[in-house]
Amino acid sequence: MALPDFTLSAGPVTVTPRTQAALGRPILYHYDPEFQAGFRRTEQKVAEVFRTGNDIILMQGEAIVALEGALRSLITPGMHVLNLVQGVFGKGTGYWIAGFGAVLHEIEVGYDDAVDPARVEEYLDAHPEIRMVCLVASETPSGTVTDVAAIGPMCRDRGILTYIDTVSGVLGMEWETDAWGLDICVAGGQKCLGGPAGVALVSVSARAWEAIYANPAAPRDSYLSLIDWKEKWLGEGRFPYTPSVSDMYGLESALDQALEEGIDAVIARHEAAADVTRAGARAMGLEFWAVREEIMSACVTSIRLPDSIDNAVVRDHARDVYGVMLSHGQGAGNLVRLSHMGPTAGGLHSLIGLAALGRTLADLGVPVDIGDGMDAALAVLSARRV
Amino acid sequence: MALPDFTLSAGPVTVTPRTQAALGRPILYHYDPEFQAGFRRTEQKVAEVFRTGNDIILMQGEAIVALEGALRSLITPGMHVLNLVQGVFGKGTGYWIAGFGAVLHEIEVGYDDAVDPARVEEYLDAHPEIRMVCLVASETPSGTVTDVAAIGPMCRDRGILTYIDTVSGVLGMEWETDAWGLDICVAGGQKCLGGPAGVALVSVSARAWEAIYANPAAPRDSYLSLIDWKEKWLGEGRFPYTPSVSDMYGLESALDQALEEGIDAVIARHEAAADVTRAGARAMGLEFWAVREEIMSACVTSIRLPDSIDNAVVRDHARDVYGVMLSHGQGAGNLVRLSHMGPTAGGLHSLIGLAALGRTLADLGVPVDIGDGMDAALAVLSARRV
Amino acid sequence: MALPDFTLSAGPVTVTPRTQAALGRPILYHYDPEFQAGFRRTEQKVAEVFRTGNDIILMQGEAIVALEGALRSLITPGMHVLNLVQGVFGKGTGYWIAGFGAVLHEIEVGYDDAVDPARVEEYLDAHPEIRMVCLVASETPSGTVTDVAAIGPMCRDRGILTYIDTVSGVLGMEWETDAWGLDICVAGGQKCLGGPAGVALVSVSARAWEAIYANPAAPRDSYLSLIDWKEKWLGEGRFPYTPSVSDMYGLESALDQALEEGIDAVIARHEAAADVTRAGARAMGLEFWAVREEIMSACVTSIRLPDSIDNAVVRDHARDVYGVMLSHGQGAGNLVRLSHMGPTAGGLHSLIGLAALGRTLADLGVPVDIGDGMDAALAVLSARRV
Amino acid sequence: MALPDFTLSAGPVTVTPRTQAALGRPILYHYDPEFQAGFRRTEQKVAEVFRTGNDIILMQGEAIVALEGALRSLITPGMHVLNLVQGVFGKGTGYWIAGFGAVLHEIEVGYDDAVDPARVEEYLDAHPEIRMVCLVASETPSGTVTDVAAIGPMCRDRGILTYIDTVSGVLGMEWETDAWGLDICVAGGQKCLGGPAGVALVSVSARAWEAIYANPAAPRDSYLSLIDWKEKWLGEGRFPYTPSVSDMYGLESALDQALEEGIDAVIARHEAAADVTRAGARAMGLEFWAVREEIMSACVTSIRLPDSIDNAVVRDHARDVYGVMLSHGQGAGNLVRLSHMGPTAGGLHSLIGLAALGRTLADLGVPVDIGDGMDAALAVLSARRV
Repeated sequence: MALPDFTLSAGPVTVTPRTQAALGRPILYHYDPEFQAGFRRTEQKVAEVFRTGNDIILMQGEAIVALEGALRSLITPGMHVLNLVQGVFGKGTGYWIAGFGAVLHEIEVGYDDAVDPARVEEYLDAHPEIRMVCLVASETPSGTVTDVAAIGPMCRDRGILTYIDTVSGVLGMEWETDAWGLDICVAGGQKCLGGPAGVALVSVSARAWEAIYANPAAPRDSYLSLIDWKEKWLGEGRFPYTPSVSDMYGLESALDQALEEGIDAVIARHEAAADVTRAGARAMGLEFWAVREEIMSACVTSIRLPDSIDNAVVRDHARDVYGVMLSHGQGAGNLVRLSHMGPTAGGLHSLIGLAALGRTLADLGVPVDIGDGMDAALAVLSARRV
Repeated sequence: MALPDFTLSAGPVTVTPRTQAALGRPILYHYDPEFQAGFRRTEQKVAEVFRTGNDIILMQGEAIVALEGALRSLITPGMHVLNLVQGVFGKGTGYWIAGFGAVLHEIEVGYDDAVDPARVEEYLDAHPEIRMVCLVASETPSGTVTDVAAIGPMCRDRGILTYIDTVSGVLGMEWETDAWGLDICVAGGQKCLGGPAGVALVSVSARAWEAIYANPAAPRDSYLSLIDWKEKWLGEGRFPYTPSVSDMYGLESALDQALEEGIDAVIARHEAAADVTRAGARAMGLEFWAVREEIMSACVTSIRLPDSIDNAVVRDHARDVYGVMLSHGQGAGNLVRLSHMGPTAGGLHSLIGLAALGRTLADLGVPVDIGDGMDAALAVLSARRV
Repeated sequence: MALPDFTLSAGPVTVTPRTQAALGRPILYHYDPEFQAGFRRTEQKVAEVFRTGNDIILMQGEAIVALEGALRSLITPGMHVLNLVQGVFGKGTGYWIAGFGAVLHEIEVGYDDAVDPARVEEYLDAHPEIRMVCLVASETPSGTVTDVAAIGPMCRDRGILTYIDTVSGVLGMEWETDAWGLDICVAGGQKCLGGPAGVALVSVSARAWEAIYANPAAPRDSYLSLIDWKEKWLGEGRFPYTPSVSDMYGLESALDQALEEGIDAVIARHEAAADVTRAGARAMGLEFWAVREEIMSACVTSIRLPDSIDNAVVRDHARDVYGVMLSHGQGAGNLVRLSHMGPTAGGLHSLIGLAALGRTLADLGVPVDIGDGMDAALAVLSARRV
Repeated sequence: MALPDFTLSAGPVTVTPRTQAALGRPILYHYDPEFQAGFRRTEQKVAEVFRTGNDIILMQGEAIVALEGALRSLITPGMHVLNLVQGVFGKGTGYWIAGFGAVLHEIEVGYDDAVDPARVEEYLDAHPEIRMVCLVASETPSGTVTDVAAIGPMCRDRGILTYIDTVSGVLGMEWETDAWGLDICVAGGQKCLGGPAGVALVSVSARAWEAIYANPAAPRDSYLSLIDWKEKWLGEGRFPYTPSVSDMYGLESALDQALEEGIDAVIARHEAAADVTRAGARAMGLEFWAVREEIMSACVTSIRLPDSIDNAVVRDHARDVYGVMLSHGQGAGNLVRLSHMGPTAGGLHSLIGLAALGRTLADLGVPVDIGDGMDAALAVLSARRV
């Protein structure tokens, strides 16, 4: 099969040619002074994007390596943990929490909904035994967000640890690690940042380190270990294992581009792209997956499909006939995602996704007002940018 | 500091421009049919290089993620495991074995020596309780090899599992996974193959799978899990997590180049480079780290330094003054490694390492016959290639 | 200013990532045996695309270097030459013909029209003194084509030389150098082929060489010389001057991609893109520049703008506000070109151009039915590809 | 045949990975505002490297297009021109001068020698009819330089125009366009600058423009025209024809790197590399081509071969057996060039050339002291850099 003309995925996303060039740079030895200096610079840039003064750990693997490593580092047997579930990733976190030996508390809503911070507050008031709250800031598979800005401070003020999966959150929504008092935040390179998938970005607060060091079960001498990175690399300048040199180049380049554009500008670009896409989808007569627009993320717009049409058929058709690669819901439901994430957040990229999806649905017999959708999307784009 | 003119490291190694171009290719969504087809092709090519019909698992991280994951998958509490130690990586394997709850047996020699297969045979005869033998085929930090060709079949014939760290072994030495009956072999992309560091290559025999499935402690739903890859990806075509797209491109490209050159030709090229380098080092008056030349690996030549000179000083000088990045011994001892690994195995690359090291030692007051070394190295190169 | 999101230009066109990678390959010495072999291969591939057994000369500069060199090679003082003019490039050819000392005959039509082959036949019948016919197969600035398939054989049968500017013709329209008996054809790399601008592709028939060798004014020892390339490079294997190594890499890569896709398939892709674009433009209420659709080229669709709006304003707005770079008419008139040339011929690329132009015109107060245009374009795309 | 391991050519030279990445950047339309801004920036950077306030013209082709275009622009019938000949390029200039209708005066010495400025002064005193002096600053094929610093001012003070071929001169030797009063200087991208071959860099003084405008035979409406670039591009912001976008990217990148390193530092690096190479060649017992070391260029060291061995045999052997591509003398004589030009000027690159040439000669039966050569070269490198 030919390569797609356009990849509008929910990650790994299309990266800029500049990031591609960085990924293709000559590979340095990881103990070359230039590589080591670059690693340190990259940590600083991640801290800037996270808006934190906390330690930054760059684990060498997909974000999930850090999600697992951090959770294992924090969980102690019998510890009470509140997990917020509004999508497949949140659900998975719960399985881990229980599996690692904690007492699992959950507030769960439909995967097309979002947990209400007020319910969290009530729950915490009613359960003073809770020691940690886990949440997914941006449930990429379903395109909904959790109100971290409300929940973070709520936990900090109660002395409760926070473990935040913000894999597609950072740069796709307002993000204040320190102002919100977040303890562990894990982001991925391949989402809103527009970088490679092979590096996980973690911020760890002093309070989190305290808990981790106090935990005899926290991974040590392991690929999952945060402590190894803290002690060997941050402490002694030795890598616990060989880092992915190319991914680190790609990561620094993507960070440079984000910082040159400006963190707020990147976030605003995602929000504008979401507005354009939603206006188009709405006018086209498509149904949003999320039950309310306020809870929709700025980086993906999930479209609910009629039961009669399987999302796999839709995506295959869009890819085969229109050369556009769209994402499915990874188990969240029968939906298709119009992504506007990283370099494809902005400008006419939204039109491509709308056109591919709209025309595919029409080809498959679903009535859609493609032209109206295009008109509406362009009108919003025009209004926002002129 | 300026970039080095030449990187002659023991991995990550300099990769070819063609591999760089692959690393910089546009990033596809991991569920794009083209990416998935490429992933399958890559597995086949790894199998070809490993010379095996076993399952190939491509874990997304540095080789150590697979070493850890595989060992955790195999070890059961109280299991008797014989570990062969002749270098820092073998030593580390032993810590893991004990830490994971097995009964550790070890045959250990100096890090400049190699374990004699006859001793292994005697040990196995004397200890019928041994269920698994662990060894490092090529101890990269010290540049020595273990005789896998002898030990592998010895274990197979006794029904003993083998767990082989061949991170820098595959393509740097004769390698026969199936003919030698090896159960688990783990290689890295960034060594003799000349690819990226972010992917680990694992072959798993049917017998190993049996042991793993029978092990309740084998990682599941984890970044360290072999079972997840077996069931989700090999079984159902779903990735357990997002793979490192760019690294996979680089890996396939490096495999293509190796297969086009021919597996035996690549190995022969490493051996020739070793001959050239050793002839030069010998004539220059340098002392090999290894106690015998027969146990030296074909991918790195470790040079023992006088106690009076720290290897860090030597490497820094070679990098600063001559623009050549050399590797240290990663704790194996006061040595410097002249690497001839991957694309830098062959031709005049050996001369660069010899010139940089020789002139550096001269600058630091160590008497060396640089010219004689060059002459001798070139004479071998001429004799081998004309 | 930021980089454009999309370049839909009439050349240099966006090239594929594979072509980009080729352009960025390590630079070889031009007398390296590998470079020389590549140069020869590239000539063969150009011949294949031109469908000719004639000599191929690859001049190292933009196509115009070959247009000038070839014309100077053919023109002798007092020679009668018929020049067909239907656009700015044809007009320029006439100035050269006269300037180089020939007797200029011209059939000229409006730049939105095409010369009728019947008029050419009549003219040739009436003027037996004509020794050469010059024409531009595809007038890129205005997006019209000349009927080479009719005129070429007409000339060959009369023993009249043909000098064909097919800079954007080859691969953008049916092309038969030998079947049509064309003597000199000059194409550019940066148009329908999707390659670099720095190489000119020329085919020269035996009859043309005869005329050139008989011409004492034909450039020799000059950058403009075809003879130098014929004698030094084709004859003796010496380059008359240093070729543009990177451009040659890009050229071969673009040719490889075209040949892998298939020449007819590439042409069909351009035609399909033209159909989609025109359906959209028509439904949007835009006016074509060309007076008749039959004479419109498959690689650009020129849109006539109202006098009240300068094309520069339109293009600047599309670039600034919508991130899409469109081309102007290079002096042909107040028009904007929606290009579908090279890699941007096909799929949803046409939608991008239509959306950018449509919304720009709307922003500038011109009434356009954007949605209808999108609908119509997608309907054609659907009908052609499903 | 495999690709070479090392290209040590006299141009096109090996370029840095950063320059390669620039050459592979996405191709912009030449009227994209970003491309146009880049073109202007590049002109400024060329002016900086040339150390001039004169107009910079960037012709789109190999340097010879500008050498021819400039000479045709300046020569008028019957004009008296003094041409200095000490190599093949100087000789060629003379053929052009005569061919273009001027009265040719020549001071010619052997191609292993350099014209003495005192002889030029005497000649000019004796021939007040001379209106222009032509010289080649750096005769790349033979590796000798002309004393432009002496001859330039001599001409300026007499009101005589200077036409300088400095294709491999700029950045490979001290260069002062304005301080030396040089009228036309032509450099190539692919030499000491380490950029692409497809762009010619020209500086034109006001006095030169005066002469050109007064010359009715100066090329106009031609690929060879300087006037077209002056009027259309510098004057009106329109390109006379489509520039080579990729080459322009490569050129700007190479200029950036040179300016970041510092012009004097780049020149010093070439001089150091020449010292290292010469020390090695001398100690190896090789014979320099040039009759005196003072006239040897800093960018290539030409080695005279015994009559019994053809340079083609030597170069083929070095390429086939040792993977090193060396340059021949392009007709200057039976010599081989050890180039240290652009990115290969510096560090251990000189060793590679010496090793390849030395061992090749040994293989072919010529007695050489390879080890002594290596020792001597490294001793100079050590002395210069420690």
